[in-house]
Formats: sequence, C-alpha cells, structure tokens
Amino acid sequence: MSQDLCVFGLGTMGSNIARNFAHHGFKVAAFNRTWARTEALLKLNEPNITGYKTIEEVVEALKKPRIFLIIVTAEFVDNVIEQLKVLLEKDDVIIDGGNSHWPDTERRQKAIEPTGVHFVGMGISGGEEGALNGPSMMFGGHSQDWDNCKRVLLPIAAKAPDDTPCVDYMGTDGAGHFVKMVHNAIEYADMQLIAETYHIMRNSLQISNEDIADVFGRWNKGVLKSYLIEITEKVLRKKEGDKYVVDLILDTAEQKGTGKWTSQDSFDIPSATPAFAEAVYARVISCLKDERVEASKTIQKNPITDISVSITVDDLEKALYAAKIICYAQGLSMIQKHSEQHHYGVDISKCAKIWRGGCIIRADFLNDVSAHYTNATKNLLTIPFFKTAVEDRLNSWRKVVLLGTLQGFPIPLYSSCLAYFDSYISDSLSANLIHGLRDFFGAHTYERIDKSGKFHTEWESEETKTTTETKAKEGTTTDTGKSTCCLLI
Amino acid sequence: MSQDLCVFGLGTMGSNIARNFAHHGFKVAAFNRTWARTEALLKLNEPNITGYKTIEEVVEALKKPRIFLIIVTAEFVDNVIEQLKVLLEKDDVIIDGGNSHWPDTERRQKAIEPTGVHFVGMGISGGEEGALNGPSMMFGGHSQDWDNCKRVLLPIAAKAPDDTPCVDYMGTDGAGHFVKMVHNAIEYADMQLIAETYHIMRNSLQISNEDIADVFGRWNKGVLKSYLIEITEKVLRKKEGDKYVVDLILDTAEQKGTGKWTSQDSFDIPSATPAFAEAVYARVISCLKDERVEASKTIQKNPITDISVSITVDDLEKALYAAKIICYAQGLSMIQKHSEQHHYGVDISKCAKIWRGGCIIRADFLNDVSAHYTNATKNLLTIPFFKTAVEDRLNSWRKVVLLGTLQGFPIPLYSSCLAYFDSYISDSLSANLIHGLRDFFGAHTYERIDKSGKFHTEWESEETKTTTETKAKEGTTTDTGKSTCCLLI
Repeated sequence: MSQDLCVFGLGTMGSNIARNFAHHGFKVAAFNRTWARTEALLKLNEPNITGYKTIEEVVEALKKPRIFLIIVTAEFVDNVIEQLKVLLEKDDVIIDGGNSHWPDTERRQKAIEPTGVHFVGMGISGGEEGALNGPSMMFGGHSQDWDNCKRVLLPIAAKAPDDTPCVDYMGTDGAGHFVKMVHNAIEYADMQLIAETYHIMRNSLQISNEDIADVFGRWNKGVLKSYLIEITEKVLRKKEGDKYVVDLILDTAEQKGTGKWTSQDSFDIPSATPAFAEAVYARVISCLKDERVEASKTIQKNPITDISVSITVDDLEKALYAAKIICYAQGLSMIQKHSEQHHYGVDISKCAKIWRGGCIIRADFLNDVSAHYTNATKNLLTIPFFKTAVEDRLNSWRKVVLLGTLQGFPIPLYSSCLAYFDSYISDSLSANLIHGLRDFFGAHTYERIDKSGKFHTEWESEETKTTTETKAKEGTTTDTGKSTCCLLI
Repeated sequence: MSQDLCVFGLGTMGSNIARNFAHHGFKVAAFNRTWARTEALLKLNEPNITGYKTIEEVVEALKKPRIFLIIVTAEFVDNVIEQLKVLLEKDDVIIDGGNSHWPDTERRQKAIEPTGVHFVGMGISGGEEGALNGPSMMFGGHSQDWDNCKRVLLPIAAKAPDDTPCVDYMGTDGAGHFVKMVHNAIEYADMQLIAETYHIMRNSLQISNEDIADVFGRWNKGVLKSYLIEITEKVLRKKEGDKYVVDLILDTAEQKGTGKWTSQDSFDIPSATPAFAEAVYARVISCLKDERVEASKTIQKNPITDISVSITVDDLEKALYAAKIICYAQGLSMIQKHSEQHHYGVDISKCAKIWRGGCIIRADFLNDVSAHYTNATKNLLTIPFFKTAVEDRLNSWRKVVLLGTLQGFPIPLYSSCLAYFDSYISDSLSANLIHGLRDFFGAHTYERIDKSGKFHTEWESEETKTTTETKAKEGTTTDTGKSTCCLLI
C-alpha cells in the first residue's frame, strides 16, 4: 500500500506520463496488458516506478483511495473498466486520460456509480513530449475526485508562463473530455489558418520557404506568439539534402476523432462553429488528391484580373490574428452553451488558463482570453479587448479574403470566419426570407418583428390573411411558442 | 380483403396522401390512433376511403401482401411497428413515409426481418400540397418490395415535365431516407443562397422588394427556373396592408432534423459538404438575434472603401447558378460515397430524375443533372456541361463574393462554395504543412510526393533524419498504409 497511483497502459503517452510522475517523486505502479511494454519502461531505470504483472497486485500495492490513470486506445476503455471495477472499492478513482468522446465518458460514469468507484474523464494535451515534461490536463467528474487527485496532478502539469500549473477541474460529468475535444477542434482551425496563410504567401506573394519561415519567426515575437507558429517556422526551414521537407510532403491530411466529433456535436447544441467544420472539410477535400489533380487540368479557375488588391505580410499577420479570435469565439461559445445545457459548470476563463502551457494550442493570446472572459461573456468578440483587436485588423483581413477570392486561392477558413463575423454583427440578416419560404411551402409559420406569436400567411390567396394558427401535429403537442426561435424541420 | 393499402397516421400529410391514393382509384383503409382525425378525413366525403377503428379490422380488410404506409412523427414509428408486426404476415410491407433518420430505418429493417414482414424507408417530399397532388417519393428497401408497391405509388407521384412519375427505387436498406435527408440539406442550401442573394440586392444594390420580386420572376424563366425561385417572387410580393410581409418576418430560422443529420453524417463518411454545414450554421447564427442586435451597436464592420466592385443583377443570377451547382455537387457526391460504403446501389441520375417534380427543390436544372450524371461521375463539376456552366459564371460569382467581403454583407454560402470550388480544382493545397506540423508535435508521420509509405522526420535534430517508422500503438494494429490518406487524429 505504498504506491501513489497506477498508470495503466504503457504506450508512448502512458510511459511518458508514468515517468513524469516518477520524476516528481510519486511512486508509480506501472501496468500494461502485455509485459513487454512494462519491461521496456523499466529498462529506462527511472526511480519510483515499479512494474506489476497482474492487476490484483497493483490493487494491493496502491494507497487508498486508489488512483488509476488509464491511457489506452478508446475502444479498450470499457474492457479496462470491467477488469478494474470488480477489484476496486468505494471512492477509488479511475481516470480515463485518453481521447474518449464525452458521451462515452458520461455513460461510463453512470454505469460505475452504483459500485462507489468514481470515473473521471481527463483530456490530456501536449503529445508525447508534453506527457513527459508537462501536459495540459482537463479534469471532469465529481469535484471531490479533483480534491483527491490534484495532489498528484498539479506537480506533473505543464506550467504557464506565470507558473500556474496547467491542470484544473473543468466541471462535472464529461466536462474534461468535452473541453479537450473542443481544444482539438481549435487546434484544427489554428493549423488550417496557418496553412492558408502559408498558401497565400507561397502562391500569391511567391515568397520562398526560407523567407516564409522568417516571417513566422518574426510573428512568433508578436501577438501571434504560440507553439504552432513557432514550429511552423521550424517545419518550413527543415531541409533534406537541398530540398525543403515541406515541399516533399503530400498535401493530404485526413480527419478523425475529435475534430469530427466537435463539428457533429455543435449541431446538436446547436452552436455555430463553421470554422471547425470548414477546417475538417478542408482536410477531406485535401484527400481527394487524384480528383483534384484531374480537375486542375480540365477546369479553369478564371481569376479576376481587372481588380487588384495588394497585401503585405503584415496584412496576413493581422488577418491571421483576427480570424484566430473568431475560431476561439466559436469554440468557447460552444463549450459555454454545452456546459449550460449539461450543468457542467465550466469556467471558460479556467479553460483558457490551462491551455497556456503544455498543449498544442498554447499561445500568449490565451493570457488575454483568461484575463478577460467572465461567466457573463456570451462571445469572445463582445470583450472590448478582442472587439478592438478585430476591428483594428478588419481592413487587412478583408483584403486577404479579397485576394484569395479574385486570384482563386482557396481560403475556406479565412472567408468562413469573416462571414461569421459579418453575420454576428448584423442586426438584420436574411433569414426572414427563409422563414417566408418555409411558411409558403410547408405552413411552418413564422415569427414577426411587430407582434409575438407564431403566424401563417395564405401567400397565394387574393386577400391578405395572416393567422396566428399553430397546428398541432399528429403525435406532438401544440407548439407553445415558448422559445424565441421556433423549432422547425 | 378489398382495400389496396392502409394509410396509418392522418395528420395533414397522411390525410392528403390518403386522398391522393383515393383520387387515383385505390381503396384506402384510413387509420389513426385517435378517431377524431379519421372522422375529419371521412367528412371530406372522398370516394374510396374507409375509416377503421382498430388495426385488427384494417389487417382483415387489406389485400395481401398488405401495404401499410405509416406517416407519423419519428418518435412514434417504433411503437407503430410493435403494434403492427404481431398482426402482419410474411411479405406484408410497412412503409415509413416520415422523415426518419436512415440508421433508425436500418435498425428497424434488421429487427423486423426475422418475422418475414418487410420494412421500407420512403422519403416523401412536397409538403402538404405535394402529398395531395403528387409528391416526390424516394423508396428504399428490398427491390421486391418496390415491385410489390410501385403499382400504388407510381400513379400518385408527381409528374416531371416529361411526365415521368417522381417516385423510384433508390436502393437497399435506408437508401430512401438517406436520399431524402440529403435532398433536404440541398433545400437548406438552395434557400440560403436565395436569402444571401436577396440580402445583397436589398442591402448592397438597394433594390425594392417589388423590384427584387421582378428579378426573381425573370430568373424563373431562365436556367434558375425552379419552385423555390418561383415562390421567392411570390413571398417578396405579398403585402399586408401597405407593408410587405417579408419585412415583418423576424430574421431568425432554426434548424433541426434532416439538415443537421446530413451535416453530421457527412463527417462520418467523410464527404465534404461545407455548403450544408454553413447553411445550417447560418440559421443558428440567425437565432442569436439579441446578441446580433447588441453586437451591431458596438462592433464596427469597417468596410473597405478604397477598392470598388460593381455588380449587376445578372452577375447575381450567374453567381446563384454557379453556387447552386456546387451545392448539388456536394450533395450528390455525398449520396454516392455513402451508397458505395453501404452497398445501396443508388443511381444518382435517378435521384435527380425524381426530384424534378413534386418536391421543394424541383428545378429545370435537374433535367441536366439526370441527363449527364453517370455511375462513373465522381463530382458534378467534372461533367463538361456543368464545368462550362460554372467557368462561364466564375467572374460574376467571384465579384459577388468580393462585394460581400468588402462591404461586410455576410455571404457564408457564396464564399464557402467558392472555396470548395477553388480547392477542388487545385492540384496543390496546403495540407502538406498541416502534415508537417502534426508530424512535428505528435510524430503522426506523413506521406510524400516522391516515394510511397509513411515517413517521420526528426524535425529538431541537427542532421536530417527521415525514417519510414510506423509506430504500433497500444491496442491497435500497425497501420498498413493501405489507404492513400492515413487516418490520423
């Protein structure tokens, strides 16, 4: 009964996180389904790590309440829980540190609840290097589990520039995995914006890899300072013989898991996250390589030549920063809405705080987000700091979209984020016409600006007949009109 | 044993479709959970309709094999099946004519299979009016069910301009509901494009409702001729006293059901359908009315004033047609890919054919789609007719996007469709950089243009070290590199 916790699953992530615990003086019980991986870890001769061959021995060896951090592929989580739950006792904690989808986490929490064992979903970001030297960790479950586990988690977490550990309690239920999922979607969007920026620099401004690398290096000293900008410089600079590696990489990138889940879940909330959808679709289109090559030979792009827009790399820096704010606005609003619906109690400021170190999207920008976001914030854009930041850069951003549009360089994310911005700040959109069309062909009714209730117009009758008719449909109750927006198919 | 079929569920849709059958000489057994609706239908004194109070009586009255067309709210379908299946015999057919999600349809098909009763998912489009006078119907299930049912379905279907009935066998399993779902997503996109066009005419070109109505009326005589363009004119023209009804409608439109499902399912395939996602998100943003009004007061849109783009309504017509082609390209490719994955055997040309009459998206344009689409088509854009149609209109389309971008009028669908087009015809995109970044921070490996296999670069080491390393992850098998695109998180 002397081991502080068990790390269950010793792939690269699991092994590295076990070593991270050990380096901080915790006694780690290391367990893996197959002994070979345990052995490989033990061969590193780290202090404080003991390998076990059976789960029963691990259970015997752990201090109570026991902490199991399981880091296994998503499809094995249920199996591991089955093995553990018969051996564990009330108040023991199983932490799923993998990329499970939050509904699975919540299903598992409900299923294990009667046994008194607690189940925590904890998103871990930072890749293999982060696991070893300090990841960002998003903890979701009972708050008392956080109280029990934080003593082992705080020391191994990454440190933000102000030395705050990058791990915290996100909220109840699947909050940890939900926040991690959206984090990953933001990562998709961040990378897509960088890729579009690079595409414009390379193809429109015709800048060399070396010079583009210089630009990213310079940007990494300003408002864009972040891990992804930093490594973009390095990736662009890397050569293999006399060739740049980036020029040898196939321009296809698949999508799977968290980016997809975030987009899918956004429609259920619903929360408008077109940036994530476009970032995922951009990868899907990238994979149609054969079709694209074929289409490029036969279909003309017909760029516009009688209008000219000139931009500088400074315009691109401004556009990138403004569009990045929109991506975060979408992601943070999504977390907030989902948290409200599920009563997670997520504090958005805390999310931004623990993303400042260890994780892939770590960025100076997050200092400003965590400093300014409050529970009353509805959208990042409404915070004066970010509102001004976007306004000041709008001219450059619009110009970048203009350039891509007239020259035919695809910038799905730059233009989608701009459409989101322009929609969000419009008091009047064109959905009134959509409402009218739907009422015309399906008698779906509409709401009005001059009186409340649901209305239907007999569009084709001679006289004007607008009724407040609300139809009770078979098997449904009469719509009470309680929400501002009627739910219609 | 004299009734041709039973219509089960007598809401407006069900009642109208029962009358439609009766008008074509079929003897209809009408049934509803509550007698009041049956009575209401009977009061119309239609010939050939008999009301029944119990399902047992209906079962007795029907010719064999019995046909039940159930038109009830999605959540009641399972319940109705439970009631029916104990009374039905081998080869009887239950047709679900509601908007069920295709995975539910396939689950129901599998569940009922051992009983010998057949279950068909049939999408019906056309609203209440179409149900009465001829809907478009998408039939999915066993082909022998189609052989059994077509005698009652062909006569009641809408007729295309060339008199072909707008009902056909789409394919096995959930093919009928899948095709109907994508049909609805296309309808979302069609309406959003019309709304953006109206928005530009009203706000940028400052054209009056009456004149915009004229424009749509004119367009309805050209390549855009379609039901939605036709009713847009009517909706815009409708007045209530001295006010236009469209100006009184609140600019909010919610999304639910099929548009959402299509977007969510596209990520699973995956198939790039940003047009549908953007159309759904546009509705989600429209519902943030209070936030938008607030934001419009405090956030500047800073339009660009030193570049000018002038467009005419002819440019808008061209842009609308070109963007519409992209929406269909996305929807049809999605059906095709899903059909291949699920072995439905959908013939895209047949989908387009039965969408030419009865349904909301009916349009002359679909004659061209059905005429040109073959099983070898990978994307609508690759068909010379549509390729040329888009190329000829690109200049106008780009100008519309330029105008919206510089003036700050949101055109999410116009710009998203253009980004899709520009991506689809690009032999070289920027996903190579994304691959590089992912390999940098997660050793996710990448593919190359100069040799096959998966590669990893030690990005930060002094010497150049690129390996063909493929890591076996815990609990997964080693990636065999069999697909062109690696599946990565």
